[in-house]
Amino acid sequence: VLLAAGSGQRFGSLKQFDLIAGHRVIDYAASTAAAVCDGVVVVLPADSLATEDGTVPAASVVVAGGSSRSESVRAGLVAVPADAAVILVHDGARPLASAELFERVIAQVRAGAPAVVPAVRVVDTIRSVDLSGMGSGGAGSAGRVIDRDLLRSLQTPQGFRANLLRQAYMGEGQATDDAGLVEALGQQILLTEGERSNLKLTESADRIIAEAILISLQSAP
Amino acid sequence: VLLAAGSGQRFGSLKQFDLIAGHRVIDYAASTAAAVCDGVVVVLPADSLATEDGTVPAASVVVAGGSSRSESVRAGLVAVPADAAVILVHDGARPLASAELFERVIAQVRAGAPAVVPAVRVVDTIRSVDLSGMGSGGAGSAGRVIDRDLLRSLQTPQGFRANLLRQAYMGEGQATDDAGLVEALGQQILLTEGERSNLKLTESADRIIAEAILISLQSAP
Repeated sequence: VLLAAGSGQRFGSLKQFDLIAGHRVIDYAASTAAAVCDGVVVVLPADSLATEDGTVPAASVVVAGGSSRSESVRAGLVAVPADAAVILVHDGARPLASAELFERVIAQVRAGAPAVVPAVRVVDTIRSVDLSGMGSGGAGSAGRVIDRDLLRSLQTPQGFRANLLRQAYMGEGQATDDAGLVEALGQQILLTEGERSNLKLTESADRIIAEAILISLQSAP
Repeated sequence: VLLAAGSGQRFGSLKQFDLIAGHRVIDYAASTAAAVCDGVVVVLPADSLATEDGTVPAASVVVAGGSSRSESVRAGLVAVPADAAVILVHDGARPLASAELFERVIAQVRAGAPAVVPAVRVVDTIRSVDLSGMGSGGAGSAGRVIDRDLLRSLQTPQGFRANLLRQAYMGEGQATDDAGLVEALGQQILLTEGERSNLKLTESADRIIAEAILISLQSAP
């Protein structure tokens, strides 16, 4: 299930259709997923389905998303064949996840893990800011340092035993974090090594970085 | 004060002397700093000073670092002219920080902030893992989600009123975080907007990303 139904509030446009290094953002992840998965369900904004943007060549099927991330996952799950044993959920704004990462996540679910989540260590110093102080005080909001050795930055594709993911989404709850929903069912999450280059395009500046990486990969011998 | 005295334990080599896009890592930050600062003190590993690696063209002076980050900062501060009003500390493993970022940090210290730290929002889901559980349990170590809206990832160059930074380093304490030392003196830290492209080269995979960005910038019209 490839999620690309966002409205791009922070990015400033429908980033999933932007061209980077000659292809649309969404087409990178769709192509990688199609190479390693039995099927690819792409979830697009409902109002994009009617336009020429509503096609993704590598997709098995394209469905309309909802007004929230959770609704879009539910819409995608409906289109996943009932006999699927493993379901991956991937963020369409991560064009650089490698086929090797997809394959490893799948293999670890097949090997018995209920939920597998790629994670990378955090290399920068992290502070937790005090938002309550930002309105009133200003500079005092620098917060406190969190021990970065304990922090992991989570990525997608995240892989799940199909029945667990379906069960997690049977309710009406909202989640930004599929693994958290599965965990709430009493299941353990396995963190697997993610990829530093597996960036999430959030701000338009990220596109420059992603494009540079993609061009570099394309010109590699 | 440009810190490049690390031994590259995680990177696997003395990364500061690696070539990326035709230049040594350390030379990028030194060149940017030289363009906007009155002087640049580069702190290198003591055993590199005797070799041909011990030269940095853009540096005002090159000094030998110590066995810890804090000792290297102290070694660098000794070489900063006594009449400096603003001192920046920058990590030599961040070749992509822009001159605009350096200039903004300097301007904000000049405008009255005791300490200025570039920070960017965290876009990935972050979990705090339970290291105590990793030895005994395994997959239970996926930890708990931290509200990412509250998290800021800190970068360099960090800017300080010169007397405050000198005072912070008068003791024998060790710190990975200059701003934290200044904060311990009762001073407030001002977070300023950092740059998503201002990556810290930590693992060798980061070099590929940084190189791609640098080549992209060089070929820009």
